[in-house]
Parts: sequence; structure tokens; C-alpha cells
Amino acid sequence: MSSSSRTFGIIVGSSGALGRAYAPVLSSLASSSSLIGLDINPSSDILGLTKVLPLSGTADDAVVIDPINTITDGGVINTIVHCAGSWAGGPFPPPGSPNSTFSSYLTSTNSMLTTNLHSAVFSAGLASRYLPPSGHLILTGASACLSVSSCSNFMPGYGLSKMGITNLANMLRNEFDFKVVVVHPGTIDTKANRDAMPGEDFEKWHDMGGMAEGVREIVERGEGGDYTVETEGGRTWLEKI
Amino acid sequence: MSSSSRTFGIIVGSSGALGRAYAPVLSSLASSSSLIGLDINPSSDILGLTKVLPLSGTADDAVVIDPINTITDGGVINTIVHCAGSWAGGPFPPPGSPNSTFSSYLTSTNSMLTTNLHSAVFSAGLASRYLPPSGHLILTGASACLSVSSCSNFMPGYGLSKMGITNLANMLRNEFDFKVVVVHPGTIDTKANRDAMPGEDFEKWHDMGGMAEGVREIVERGEGGDYTVETEGGRTWLEKI
Repeated sequence: MSSSSRTFGIIVGSSGALGRAYAPVLSSLASSSSLIGLDINPSSDILGLTKVLPLSGTADDAVVIDPINTITDGGVINTIVHCAGSWAGGPFPPPGSPNSTFSSYLTSTNSMLTTNLHSAVFSAGLASRYLPPSGHLILTGASACLSVSSCSNFMPGYGLSKMGITNLANMLRNEFDFKVVVVHPGTIDTKANRDAMPGEDFEKWHDMGGMAEGVREIVERGEGGDYTVETEGGRTWLEKI
Repeated sequence: MSSSSRTFGIIVGSSGALGRAYAPVLSSLASSSSLIGLDINPSSDILGLTKVLPLSGTADDAVVIDPINTITDGGVINTIVHCAGSWAGGPFPPPGSPNSTFSSYLTSTNSMLTTNLHSAVFSAGLASRYLPPSGHLILTGASACLSVSSCSNFMPGYGLSKMGITNLANMLRNEFDFKVVVVHPGTIDTKANRDAMPGEDFEKWHDMGGMAEGVREIVERGEGGDYTVETEGGRTWLEKI
């Protein structure tokens, strides 16, 4: 198969739990072995990745754009999945609260904007630069941040970053023909979440395989839009908002 | 007058054109000579400022929170104005565009999030920490960013930062009793704007004195909410959305 007829996928946040779950699904949507990972912690042990490039918040294209052009070499990038991100609390400092509360609020908000929103901004730039009109960009939102009231209380930084992703998606939809899918999960069943919340009922958390399969179906149907993640009786699926 | 009966104002972005216009109005709302400036470029030549502290995106309270506590010494901060910010373009990189377009997009988006949104996040933390229920936080939005369609085209980073400020305002309104005012101007008549756009009709741009007077009236009426800035026949006023 010549390069120009090959299709490629990109996973931004490829070494995370969700990135690893999306990898095989994304591989199956592109030609075989044509998956590029981007990550702040590049790891090459993920099945199906051709190459893992460093994800930088800065504009260092020599390490990202040039290699992507070389790898794809006239082929088409048809799917970009953004699943880089993390969670941190850090409420608005209440009246009379100690200095440490202000520190924690600023630190966590800056960290959420960098980890979640900047990586989505990076992915949006890749999408606008590379995706054809038939392409898909998948962004990761959060069900708790679909309304202001459910995220302002103890995680304003997380809320700002995830609501920023929704605004970013709407700006892209206004400008480009490719489809923008935003998946808004609740708690995902990952090792990190099990370790952090050992007393919870893991059965109610989202299965990553179900999320990845849901994304595959949306891409195969050629759809875009916002989706919540539903989990019941051990099954996880995406539901259009 | 004892410290505990004194009232104070804070201007975040005090050395900018808008900060200088807000200073006398804010001074008149607080006790005399009780205005604290915060700025990335601290300047002490602004009329009526008691003290100018460095504005940092990081959580260095030793240089901000401790001095604020010392200056206010039991008094009440009743008004906080956020007017730090700037404008930069940098569109989503179009299909096939050169690397430089991707660089410029990332650089300008990061800069807008840092300059506009982080400074607003900082101001929001000061507001939640210090303002009494009767207090006011004034944030600076942008009329162009009230809808996605008018800012996605050539300034997605500016749009993200200003829409983030609207989200931040709504989160604060959901949590606290103090009033949050967001002023959404178009082009403001500043020296920098005249230098950057010499061919424009300056008569149509907003007069900063009119904006500051508009904010004074809103604060005196004890209102909150979102306001556009209107300019006609040399007069500038705020209009509730």
C-alpha cells in the first residue's frame, strides 16, 4: 500500500489508561499500524502505535509537526482522539481561609488548564491542520461540567478546563466540516481511580472498552456532537445529548 | 479612622490603560487612599494606589496574600476590579498550512489563557477569599466572545479566554453572595489601540472614563450581571444584557 492511500490516527494522551483503551479501536479505523501517539510521557509500549511524539504545551513544531508530516507522507489522518487529562480539586478559597487554600486553588486551576485544556487546544490545532471534511476529532469533556452548578463547588479549575473544551468544540464546529465529538464521562474505571477511591462501587464506573467501542460506532456512522457515557449492569455505552 | 472601619479596593491589572481609568472611580467607592494594585508590571505612579503588588500566575501568597492582609489589617475589601488582559489573534491552522501557523496558534492561545484567564482566576480567588456578601467583583469579558461564531474565526485563543471568564463568573455566582459584574466591551479607545489601528474611527471606540463611571453606577446600585458597552455620539455607557 502506498503512503498516499494510507490512513492514520492520532491519540493525544496515548500512554494514559483511556489512551491505551482507544488505541486498538483507532487502529482498526485507520490502516494497520498507522497510529501516532502524543504524550507528555512518551511511552512506546502501547499496542499498535507507529510512533510516540512528545506533547508540548509550547509551539515546538520541530518535534511534532515535522515528524507527523514525515510519518504520514501524503497519507490522510482521519481520526484524532484527545484523551489527555487529569482531575484535581481546589475550591475557591472561602472567606477567611488560610493562605494554603489560595495556593491550592491557584495551583490546581493552573494544572487543570494546562493538563486538560492546553492538550485539547493542541489536538484542535492538529485537527484543523490535518483532518479532511470526513474526519473526526474526539475530545474528552466531563459530565459534571455540563452545568456550572455541579463543578463550581469543589473543582472550579476542572470545570473551567472542561467547559473550555466544550467551547473549543463549538468553535471548531463553526469553522470546519470535520466532525467534532465530545465524550462527557463520569468516573471511569481505571486503576488510578480504584486506588484513589477504594471504597466505591466500581460496577457503576464506566468501562473504557465500552467507551472506545462507542466512539468507534459514532465514527463509523459519521456523526458528531456531545455524548454522555452511561453504565448499567456492567455495560457501558455513549448516549447523544 | 481605624483600619477595621476602612474599606479597600483592589485593581488587578492596575498599570494598564483600563486599570488607570478605573483607579479614581474605585478610590471613590472605598475609603480614601485605600486602593491596592496587582500587576505583572508593578508601577507605583498611578493616582490613588496605596500599594502595587506583583501579579503572579503561581501560588506565591507570600508576595500577595500576606501583604494584602497586612495592608487591610481588619478592614474590608469591598470591590475588586479585574482588567488585566490583552488581545492576540492566531487562527486555527488551516489544512495544509505551514508549521508557522501552528506555532502562532499555540503561542497566541497559551498567551491569551495566561494573560486573560489566569489573571481572572486569580481575581476570582481574591474575591471569594475577601469580599463580603455586599461586595462586587468586576471582570472584563469581550462583546465578540458572547457568541462562538464571532470569535472562532481568527482569535480562538482570545475567545477561549474570554468565554472562560464568563464561565468563571457563573461559577462564582453559583457559590457566593457577592455580586459578579462582567463588562463585555468592543474596542476600547486606548493609546495602544490607536497606534495599532491608526485608520479606524476612534469616535466609535469606547471611552474608558464612561466605562469606569458605568461600573461605579452598577456598584452603587448593588447590581451584578453581564453588561455590554455602548458608545454613541461621543458618550459611552453600560447596558445590561
